[in-house]
Amino acid sequence: MTATEFDTAVDAPVPAGRAAETPAPPAPGPAAGPVDTDELRRVLDGRSADLREKARREFPADLFGPIDHLSTAEQRDLTLARLRVLADLGGHEAGFSSRYGGGDSPGAQVGQFEVLGLGDASLMIKSGVQWGLFGGAVQALGTERHHAELLPPLLRLDLVGCFAMTETGHGSDVASLGTTATYDPATREFVVHTPDESCRKDYIGGAARDAEVAVVFAQLVTGGVRQGVHAFVVPLRGPDGGDLPGIRRGDDGRKAGLNGVDNGRLWFDAVRVPRTALLDRYAQVAEDGTYSSPIASENARFFTMLGALVKGRVSISGGAIGQTKVALEIASRYALRRRQFARPGAERGERGEEVVLLDYLAHQRRLLVPLATTYALSFAQDELMGEMDDLLKVQLAGGDPEPDRQRAFEAHAAGMKVAATWHATRTIQTCREACGGHGYLSESRLPQLKADTDVFTTFEGDNTVLLQLVAKSQLTAYAQQFSDLDTLGMARFATRDFVTTLAGRSPARSLVADVVEAGRVPDELHDRAWQLRMIADRERHVVESLAKRMRKARSRDDRDAFETVDGLQDHLLLAGRAHVDRVVAEAFAAAIARTEDGAVAALLGEVFDLHALALLEAEKGWYLEHRRMTTLRAKAVTHAVNELCRRLRPRTEELLDGFGIPRHWLASSLVPGSLAGGPPVAAAGAAALS
Amino acid sequence: MTATEFDTAVDAPVPAGRAAETPAPPAPGPAAGPVDTDELRRVLDGRSADLREKARREFPADLFGPIDHLSTAEQRDLTLARLRVLADLGGHEAGFSSRYGGGDSPGAQVGQFEVLGLGDASLMIKSGVQWGLFGGAVQALGTERHHAELLPPLLRLDLVGCFAMTETGHGSDVASLGTTATYDPATREFVVHTPDESCRKDYIGGAARDAEVAVVFAQLVTGGVRQGVHAFVVPLRGPDGGDLPGIRRGDDGRKAGLNGVDNGRLWFDAVRVPRTALLDRYAQVAEDGTYSSPIASENARFFTMLGALVKGRVSISGGAIGQTKVALEIASRYALRRRQFARPGAERGERGEEVVLLDYLAHQRRLLVPLATTYALSFAQDELMGEMDDLLKVQLAGGDPEPDRQRAFEAHAAGMKVAATWHATRTIQTCREACGGHGYLSESRLPQLKADTDVFTTFEGDNTVLLQLVAKSQLTAYAQQFSDLDTLGMARFATRDFVTTLAGRSPARSLVADVVEAGRVPDELHDRAWQLRMIADRERHVVESLAKRMRKARSRDDRDAFETVDGLQDHLLLAGRAHVDRVVAEAFAAAIARTEDGAVAALLGEVFDLHALALLEAEKGWYLEHRRMTTLRAKAVTHAVNELCRRLRPRTEELLDGFGIPRHWLASSLVPGSLAGGPPVAAAGAAALS
Repeated sequence: MTATEFDTAVDAPVPAGRAAETPAPPAPGPAAGPVDTDELRRVLDGRSADLREKARREFPADLFGPIDHLSTAEQRDLTLARLRVLADLGGHEAGFSSRYGGGDSPGAQVGQFEVLGLGDASLMIKSGVQWGLFGGAVQALGTERHHAELLPPLLRLDLVGCFAMTETGHGSDVASLGTTATYDPATREFVVHTPDESCRKDYIGGAARDAEVAVVFAQLVTGGVRQGVHAFVVPLRGPDGGDLPGIRRGDDGRKAGLNGVDNGRLWFDAVRVPRTALLDRYAQVAEDGTYSSPIASENARFFTMLGALVKGRVSISGGAIGQTKVALEIASRYALRRRQFARPGAERGERGEEVVLLDYLAHQRRLLVPLATTYALSFAQDELMGEMDDLLKVQLAGGDPEPDRQRAFEAHAAGMKVAATWHATRTIQTCREACGGHGYLSESRLPQLKADTDVFTTFEGDNTVLLQLVAKSQLTAYAQQFSDLDTLGMARFATRDFVTTLAGRSPARSLVADVVEAGRVPDELHDRAWQLRMIADRERHVVESLAKRMRKARSRDDRDAFETVDGLQDHLLLAGRAHVDRVVAEAFAAAIARTEDGAVAALLGEVFDLHALALLEAEKGWYLEHRRMTTLRAKAVTHAVNELCRRLRPRTEELLDGFGIPRHWLASSLVPGSLAGGPPVAAAGAAALS
Repeated sequence: MTATEFDTAVDAPVPAGRAAETPAPPAPGPAAGPVDTDELRRVLDGRSADLREKARREFPADLFGPIDHLSTAEQRDLTLARLRVLADLGGHEAGFSSRYGGGDSPGAQVGQFEVLGLGDASLMIKSGVQWGLFGGAVQALGTERHHAELLPPLLRLDLVGCFAMTETGHGSDVASLGTTATYDPATREFVVHTPDESCRKDYIGGAARDAEVAVVFAQLVTGGVRQGVHAFVVPLRGPDGGDLPGIRRGDDGRKAGLNGVDNGRLWFDAVRVPRTALLDRYAQVAEDGTYSSPIASENARFFTMLGALVKGRVSISGGAIGQTKVALEIASRYALRRRQFARPGAERGERGEEVVLLDYLAHQRRLLVPLATTYALSFAQDELMGEMDDLLKVQLAGGDPEPDRQRAFEAHAAGMKVAATWHATRTIQTCREACGGHGYLSESRLPQLKADTDVFTTFEGDNTVLLQLVAKSQLTAYAQQFSDLDTLGMARFATRDFVTTLAGRSPARSLVADVVEAGRVPDELHDRAWQLRMIADRERHVVESLAKRMRKARSRDDRDAFETVDGLQDHLLLAGRAHVDRVVAEAFAAAIARTEDGAVAALLGEVFDLHALALLEAEKGWYLEHRRMTTLRAKAVTHAVNELCRRLRPRTEELLDGFGIPRHWLASSLVPGSLAGGPPVAAAGAAALS
């Protein structure tokens, strides 16, 4: 109970003859000076600085606020009401074609999504279903006539839609969906059908209640031939408000969180839709049933369609980062205020003499390390949004992005989604624990943040599956490089140019150089080039050895093809993680390099050190195992992480201010002044919104 | 999306001249034969086998079942109704003195608590508040007159109580509580008072609604002298059902989980209680106000009182293990049934040819490793309950346990509480993710398990604080050993006898021996003695180096006493973890050694291997850093973990059957046949119970 009162600890004699093993502390330079937090916020806001400022200024005070004390039905009502406010406010239309009221700016749409994540995750997801998934599918997979007919009403929320992809029996393996859409040339219609229970659409946001129309993913069959998965616009509800014949809905009921979103199930009993219901950008069916597509291979077609929808994944990583920021700010502001246990020498019960929670090293490690990583992920997310904006602008203009760039972007987006959502789950859990019993009460908001974000790790692509996608993309890039190289080039490649070639960035070092490096004096730990090389080298080695093992496995007999490659699954997952770690670190370093304000850049530099060294510490098992680090260096890294925690402790408030979250958006009983004076109940919110 | 379809992976050329680095696989012996799962269950049930069998047989079918779809008020009603059923069924009284209807068997009471954890955590905690905390405080801290007056009605649930210790401003630091109980010799009463808002009692189960009486922890003041924290029986409610004068209640409202428990706040405005309200086993106040205690030091008195209450912590670790088992069984049975992605070579959409989830190595790692650790924790918990039973029987008989043994037990209990509750939080999270979207729906039960257990890591002692308590206890034991040794003994101690001396168990090896060992051939990885030595050696080294650093830190100037010792906080936490890891592994090994059924022992032996090697793998950073493992050995450990997953995959159902959880207690839509046919709603349950 009083374990931190070290004054009662024992004096243990030291066995003779063993030198102290703790390495000498690095000699850090003077602490960076105070920063202009407005400037820090602008740097962190990045490409979406303008829209963030606008949201802070213009969002109504009651757009957000607690909803988890309400019944499921009430939460759904309130969320839909808030969505209508958002439809009037605008911002969601940014990612659509300007011909139909859009802004031709997909990055801005995703930026708005992340801002909503600072407030109300149910509203964020509800808007994501309507304008990201449903609207996004119409925009990306449809053609002129679909855009003209559907985009204006769906942007105004005069038409509420849903995105019916996942089935009970098929989540990750979308290519194996069982719903069929069979063309009937006699009536020029598609017949949409659910063949069995495993093929019912499931977990579909909006399907339980609000959706009037669905984009349904189904196996297209024409002339008796199956052509793979395609998307169809299927009306669910008639003019009288009742469900149309052949449509059946189910309700997924209460969930761990996100109860403002009405997830449900859909069954189709031979539902007939016109031939034009096919979203036909990548494939067409003529009146006589003839199938055609500019993309010959079914597999390539499928991935092109999915690729066009990658915006959803980018949105989720942004939303996860937003929710993480809120949790960190709540827990850190509490830790700056809350005291526990008397300082050594002070009287018990003298409140003023008790230690502030964030003065404990263990508490700093729990909160400041994820705070640093949240900064890193924010900059990486901003870079990702920039890439996405470039690519989707090509798509909006009717073109198709360059395939290699699209592939790299998809891997990047998948990896960021994994990194940001697992970081959110872990960090929000830590924040809850760091607030003790108070963090368990709904009024703290932490339970809602935890419950809402929990599903992020498995929807829009299960993280474990996505990491393998990332790894496969790395292997493809690796093989492509080889096919372009002659023998001499290959030898050079193997020894030193791997990362330069693969990633077009910082050169990696040979094994020998790394080991020499690892023996240097400790204060080089703070050398950014060294940190980046260490992180990049891990990716290089993991991918290289994975490629070798893959080749060896595939050269064997094919009897146990599954068992052989499955044995490499943990290596694949490691390759995916190592890749994302490198991409995130490089994005953060690049952002610091372009920061003009010296004080801000200096502070971010220390935040980078903490992020990078904590990563090396967490992965020290790998670095030691692969002789990339000496044991002395490993201990020095731990020491440096502790030192950085101490140095950044007095900068915590500046770093939280950098998030730029208006106080009342925090809406937590743990942060004084963040909850409205009156009852924080729906009554108030709903009245203002109705 | 189809990342696991390895057949589309690339053939990457391998750079020449680098040998494959993967170590040769160990040559495992033949797989153990099938086991009698009834026998396995009996072994795992351990000391509480009888009461577990009784509960499986006799608990009414509707004692458990989902409650999270209900409003907070309805959940509280249902939980209280279930508690009344439990009061009639019996089992809770086991831990009390047989003079008042108890069973003199504290271990059995804790065993029943764990069984409740398999069903309904709100009911488990509600019963824990009534009979563990409230009843337990009366039993342990009170004397004859308190027992006679209070135990019979509280056991029958004719008197509902609460345990008012924690205050808003003081959770972990109980010694600094602010509530006062000032003796007034004129009226022979104590005046119980809440001096300010930080001293209100908070998070108190039962305080919001049901409690009629409270055991209040307050600073005892008599004759103007403060004597430290003591416990008092304070009636809250009068015969008319209304709160007594000076009593004010608040409601903590909705929480992340455990909403069947009515947590709340209490304020006392100069509430007068008779002198006999003091639970006076360890301290008395005479009519004239004279204070006396058999324990001279205030500090020692305080810890003796807290020590008497340690049963609560043991209960929580048991409850956490129970909830973890349920989550693992739900996720594993789903993984044995659910298929995703076609096997290489099979047609897409051929359902029968899709791969069962648990056939993927990554899925095996996610579920089978925590399954093995859950077995390990169960055996350690059984050992802990045995220790507790011995000690509390002494206490029940009016005696006081031997101080060294009590201290060791308290550290053991604290460590197990930390290990079991963090394991629960991590594992249930993994189980949720392993079930994808379906695991996010309330009907799967996983959200409820997650939300209910979340607070376990911070109540009954915050885990971070408890780990430091464990570490301090290790340091004390370490120092005590030294004070008993002469110079020659000390030299021997330093080189080889540390763990023998400290723990009275398996002898440790010198550093040199370990390093030699680490270079041996890989199939020794499965040698239990080696595994145990590796685990014990980590504890030894961490505690030894901690003691040295502590001594060095304390020999310095005292100016920055706090900063100096705080810098060791991460080392303290590591020492606590290393200790628990060793205790758990040894308890598991001991249980296998005494298992008579050869097939069961063989199966448990493989489970032990997986638990131990996964622990070495997770801690390989430490082992490499401290030269306890070669890099080759570290890679071999990873390989062995993968091999063990493969070997135990076909044994999954046997291992789940070993948990002995009746199918309908699982109550999950992910396990066919575990939910009652009718509506699983309170209506049914409440009707049956009212």
